[in-house]
Amino acid sequence: MKIILVGASGTIGKKVYARLVKNHEVIRASANQGDIKVDITDSSSITSMFKAVQNVDAVVCAAGSAYFGPFDSMTEDDFYTGIRDKMMGQINLVMIGKDFINDNGSFTLITGILAEDPIRMGVGLSTVNGAVNAFVNAASIELKRNIRINVVCPGLVEDAVEKYAPYFPGHHPVSMDRVVNGYLKCIEGAKTGEVIKIY
Amino acid sequence: MKIILVGASGTIGKKVYARLVKNHEVIRASANQGDIKVDITDSSSITSMFKAVQNVDAVVCAAGSAYFGPFDSMTEDDFYTGIRDKMMGQINLVMIGKDFINDNGSFTLITGILAEDPIRMGVGLSTVNGAVNAFVNAASIELKRNIRINVVCPGLVEDAVEKYAPYFPGHHPVSMDRVVNGYLKCIEGAKTGEVIKIY
Repeated sequence: MKIILVGASGTIGKKVYARLVKNHEVIRASANQGDIKVDITDSSSITSMFKAVQNVDAVVCAAGSAYFGPFDSMTEDDFYTGIRDKMMGQINLVMIGKDFINDNGSFTLITGILAEDPIRMGVGLSTVNGAVNAFVNAASIELKRNIRINVVCPGLVEDAVEKYAPYFPGHHPVSMDRVVNGYLKCIEGAKTGEVIKIY
Repeated sequence: MKIILVGASGTIGKKVYARLVKNHEVIRASANQGDIKVDITDSSSITSMFKAVQNVDAVVCAAGSAYFGPFDSMTEDDFYTGIRDKMMGQINLVMIGKDFINDNGSFTLITGILAEDPIRMGVGLSTVNGAVNAFVNAASIELKRNIRINVVCPGLVEDAVEKYAPYFPGHHPVSMDRVVNGYLKCIEGAKTGEVIKIY
């Protein structure tokens, strides 16, 4: 398969790349490095990416951020940080990409455990994760040409423990292999409309 | 209790009002009628409402719309219709209202079954419903002064069958009484962080 991997240089993206590249042609897309640059908060940048990389069988995302901080002092603008990035960034990847992707292609997005198991300061992330999970389920019934869509929804991943564990009390780290397998299930498997919970 | 009911003139709001007014002081807020006007897509309008109506024990929402139409032709702007209205409109009600509401007060928002059981043309609604469900769960652990937050998540309601049934094949209508009871459970009960599914 020919695969675009958005967020290829991130904690999860690096591991997904290492596995996918064994069996597929993988184009790495990132904000500042990789084979092609893309800013997912800018729909024109997404369109440019799809125009530059044709005949793709899978669009895979391991990118997306949102505001992290106390709800008490959170503002409307703080919410829109995640809306423009992890939420509409990924939704735009699908909305724009569906007109470029090959028949029988697939989209694999990313959310996370905070969608249903919140932590302090995580309201912004929980909200956009919930939005993307619901989007994937709904979009799956309207995509045409046998195009599939799923979302990998990991818990706190092993490779992020050092940085984030203090914010995730009691969260049991999940192995990077399990997360990568979640991606493989979506890309090489046959499911659609699923939230693949890795926790 | 002193209660602000946003969307008091809508299909669900009218029935919620009729029940609440028997035991509570209810201020009806709507876009164009009621006791006070509010435009939930405009955070300054929400702030004005809370400044005008002080000492509130419960903020109840039965309002919020989103784009309804085929995903195939949906645009980024179409998505933002629902983001600004049903999603951020309700989130702003909480974000702004939490600084005005009384100790031990409560927020009750509204979403709907499309969050997890999608229909054709409903991607915009599914997405914002999923966002608000996750928001409520996450915000509940950070609200202070014993303030609670829940969301009523109804299926296709009886009073909307005539208008919407053709878009909801096989959806069994839920009684207005059940929906109103969902609101009562949030307002007069003790739960917090719950998605009250009425279907």
